Amino acid sequence: MLSKPSTGSFVIMVTFAICICVSVAVSLYFILANNDNESPEQPNIIIMYGDDTGYADFQTYGHPTQEWNGVDRMSQEGIKFTQWSTPSALCSPSRAALSTGRYPIRTGVFGRKRVFQTSSSGGLPHREVTIAEALKDVGYITGMVGKWHLGINKNSSTDGYYLPHNHGFDYVGTILPHTQNAICNPEKYNVRQMRNCFIYRNDTIVQQPTDLTTLTKNLVVDAKHFINTNKNNPFFFFFSFPQTHTALFASPEFLGKSKRGQYGDMVNEMGSSINEIMDQLIDLKIEKRTLVIFLSDNGPKFDGCGDGGSPGVFRGGKTTTWEGGIRVPAVAWWPGTIKPGVVSNAVVSSLDIFPTVLKIAGSNYIKRRNLTIDGQVNDEVIKGLKSKSYDETLFFYYNGVLTSARHQQYKINFYKFRSIVDIMEELDETIRCDYTSSIVKDAVFDIENKVSKQDTPLIYDIEKDPQESSPLDSESKEYKRVIKLVDKRVQAHNASILAVESEIDKPYTNDAPCCNPPLCTCNYNEE
Amino acid sequence: MLSKPSTGSFVIMVTFAICICVSVAVSLYFILANNDNESPEQPNIIIMYGDDTGYADFQTYGHPTQEWNGVDRMSQEGIKFTQWSTPSALCSPSRAALSTGRYPIRTGVFGRKRVFQTSSSGGLPHREVTIAEALKDVGYITGMVGKWHLGINKNSSTDGYYLPHNHGFDYVGTILPHTQNAICNPEKYNVRQMRNCFIYRNDTIVQQPTDLTTLTKNLVVDAKHFINTNKNNPFFFFFSFPQTHTALFASPEFLGKSKRGQYGDMVNEMGSSINEIMDQLIDLKIEKRTLVIFLSDNGPKFDGCGDGGSPGVFRGGKTTTWEGGIRVPAVAWWPGTIKPGVVSNAVVSSLDIFPTVLKIAGSNYIKRRNLTIDGQVNDEVIKGLKSKSYDETLFFYYNGVLTSARHQQYKINFYKFRSIVDIMEELDETIRCDYTSSIVKDAVFDIENKVSKQDTPLIYDIEKDPQESSPLDSESKEYKRVIKLVDKRVQAHNASILAVESEIDKPYTNDAPCCNPPLCTCNYNEE
Repeated sequence: MLSKPSTGSFVIMVTFAICICVSVAVSLYFILANNDNESPEQPNIIIMYGDDTGYADFQTYGHPTQEWNGVDRMSQEGIKFTQWSTPSALCSPSRAALSTGRYPIRTGVFGRKRVFQTSSSGGLPHREVTIAEALKDVGYITGMVGKWHLGINKNSSTDGYYLPHNHGFDYVGTILPHTQNAICNPEKYNVRQMRNCFIYRNDTIVQQPTDLTTLTKNLVVDAKHFINTNKNNPFFFFFSFPQTHTALFASPEFLGKSKRGQYGDMVNEMGSSINEIMDQLIDLKIEKRTLVIFLSDNGPKFDGCGDGGSPGVFRGGKTTTWEGGIRVPAVAWWPGTIKPGVVSNAVVSSLDIFPTVLKIAGSNYIKRRNLTIDGQVNDEVIKGLKSKSYDETLFFYYNGVLTSARHQQYKINFYKFRSIVDIMEELDETIRCDYTSSIVKDAVFDIENKVSKQDTPLIYDIEKDPQESSPLDSESKEYKRVIKLVDKRVQAHNASILAVESEIDKPYTNDAPCCNPPLCTCNYNEE
Repeated sequence: MLSKPSTGSFVIMVTFAICICVSVAVSLYFILANNDNESPEQPNIIIMYGDDTGYADFQTYGHPTQEWNGVDRMSQEGIKFTQWSTPSALCSPSRAALSTGRYPIRTGVFGRKRVFQTSSSGGLPHREVTIAEALKDVGYITGMVGKWHLGINKNSSTDGYYLPHNHGFDYVGTILPHTQNAICNPEKYNVRQMRNCFIYRNDTIVQQPTDLTTLTKNLVVDAKHFINTNKNNPFFFFFSFPQTHTALFASPEFLGKSKRGQYGDMVNEMGSSINEIMDQLIDLKIEKRTLVIFLSDNGPKFDGCGDGGSPGVFRGGKTTTWEGGIRVPAVAWWPGTIKPGVVSNAVVSSLDIFPTVLKIAGSNYIKRRNLTIDGQVNDEVIKGLKSKSYDETLFFYYNGVLTSARHQQYKINFYKFRSIVDIMEELDETIRCDYTSSIVKDAVFDIENKVSKQDTPLIYDIEKDPQESSPLDSESKEYKRVIKLVDKRVQAHNASILAVESEIDKPYTNDAPCCNPPLCTCNYNEE
């Protein structure tokens, strides 16, 4: 028999009931709230890509006056890599390597002319599988904005044969099929030179020359549009920044704000865009199922003219395979999967992104299609679960020549690059900083002037000596052991290369793109 | 009339009573716990001082492979400075500047012989007021361990005239009156050379040569003893590390552990000692009334022999007044007063520590004694409350010659220093890395070989161009405005200097200290 509950018991029971209701409600809220935001089998993947952004261009990588921005935030809330390299110190080859996971020497994106020009008839060959194509294969919606630089046209100045929509991108927003650089600054250069400065939407020129004051904002609008539209799909998005290069431009709200000058303004605008995208992912509650990676294509242009970025502690810069040219800032952000504030010394290459991302997306494409991929699967390293990656040897190329290698902690330089600052100082002061001068280009890029083969390769322990200032004694056991092993690896690597035509050295048979010949000036963005 | 409370009301009342009791207890606990740990008028002050530790020798300052340690922790929990400089790139002058707040040219701690040697008859003059003396004046107990390098003896090889106990330190534990360096490594050098390697306790030699495997541990034991003994006083403690220099030593538990090699081991052992001190302050519950500052005396020895530290993005290193020689890592930690994770770009000098610390300690000594102090009061900057410090011009000296200046964002180089790496490369490979070779010393330190006066001084905006790679055009308005102003400041500065004798160039009339002539080997630490 149940006795009638006393008033005391009643109060306690009511209190309990309220507690239980609240607990259930709170639990349900979190379960429901997290339901569409847990880490699924196929997370979204966003690659953010800086252009010639130096290792030390961010506060988190040691720049003394650069302001804190989105890249620092990614590092604080995610993982920062300190030994991430790219196989080439030039834009087109680096971008081909990222897109395919293969050395540029295999894809044809190498050559004496260094990078694709606007009138080139070459580009990333269609026989190559891009990361976008491989991800589409497992159901991803793919999109991009920003710099491409893997070819534009093949047979005419309008066929768009090499544009991103022909390389696996479902959505192509505002893009720079070529690049953004110093000559696109209307304060310094004339309209004729501006013909190389144009933006497309998908396969159509919409602005020529480029309006530098609205460029970044337009990219962000497109990126946010794509992400918002595809928030329920697994998507792949490639945000390829026009920053930082040596363009020296920024939207009005960033211009003149950085302690570091105009270069700093550009870094901050790029960082701010990254911040906006992170905020959007959080607002859409999809941040836990989105992996974001930021990295630079290669090292900074560092030439004594004061316009370029900072290689930090490293020697050399863009175009050289000293660490200054090939070591890049790289951070990854994936709330709930990557712990905040991790610093990883793992040896990672941009080549690894292709196979790593495919594994994360659950694709067996590489095996199924029997692709020859140079990158390694590094998903545990990206997630910060493993600090050492692999025992492979990495190779670094300049214009199709194997100039350096990395094996474990060792950097092996088969060639030595002259300091760009020294080369520049030999030039007449009045033309030194004129980026259109062929004298400057010849001096800086002439391979004979610039590199010298080392009969006895220089070997550095770059974990001890990141400056590459103190080579190992070539008579030491350590040297002999390393060179013997690396020589074998180089031979095996060389033997694996099937000769392909250089795409970069293909003739410049096309006119540069032009929206309304012969003027080549237009702005359809305003209409 | 009061009705008898119902059982329900009773339960509620009891619950309330319990709640109130718990609240009061918790509040009391916190009030009592914080009572002896609030920020008082006279906080303890600890200066931690690295020896030739480079700007980029820590993860937080951008080193790619250095492990996270106590300095990174201080930065994470406190404030990190990115534009902190020292007026000289050599040990004795830098240390004199820190101790007195005055340019070495005023104190006599400058000279063609660069730094004090063990047989020198000079030292920091007693007419100078040290930070320890000034803090004693307002009731602080003062103590130190570690490297001194401001003179040992004057009239004999045993008078200890210039030792720290004669410069205001109540407690002097294990000290290196001279320095720790590469020649103290018994694996490389012989016993005769070891005569310059000795440690004292207060005014007595206790070990000759130095036992490198126990050195750091002994310093930490002494430091912790001093702090523990004086936990209820306001105290000033100077922990002057023998690290990092180019000594390449470490205690067994650190040796061989760093990815960065032996230099990294040293950095980690120093960082670990800092960590221990921070933990001790927390354990003693005095961290909220203790300001800890870590900084380096000057830039790293960076010579192509691979033993030295990293200047990061900066040009040059120790001995030069390029930023690599004078820009130092500097972090401050004061829980409850300094917010965690602040990065400050304020322009700060090691000269500022003297007047700043005196202000924080509530001293009017400078005014009362009418001292000529070059440093500025920067307490709000140290606390992270103000980002810009002052509009003064900073001067940088090499061997008594004013070689550079800093004004706002500008660095003005009246002299240009040759690259030490270049100088070293001209030397025969077999002797290049022998620190005892007079050929090496002459080549590296010979002022004519090393510096060249610039008829048109080089001016860099070092907030934009920290590498000092792109000087301002000397015909520009900006250049002319800056040089005009700085020339005036230099004149005023020069006019304010009263000629004093060089202490460093005083004759080497003493024998080097010796514990038991003629052997000069002993180890009283073991007895």
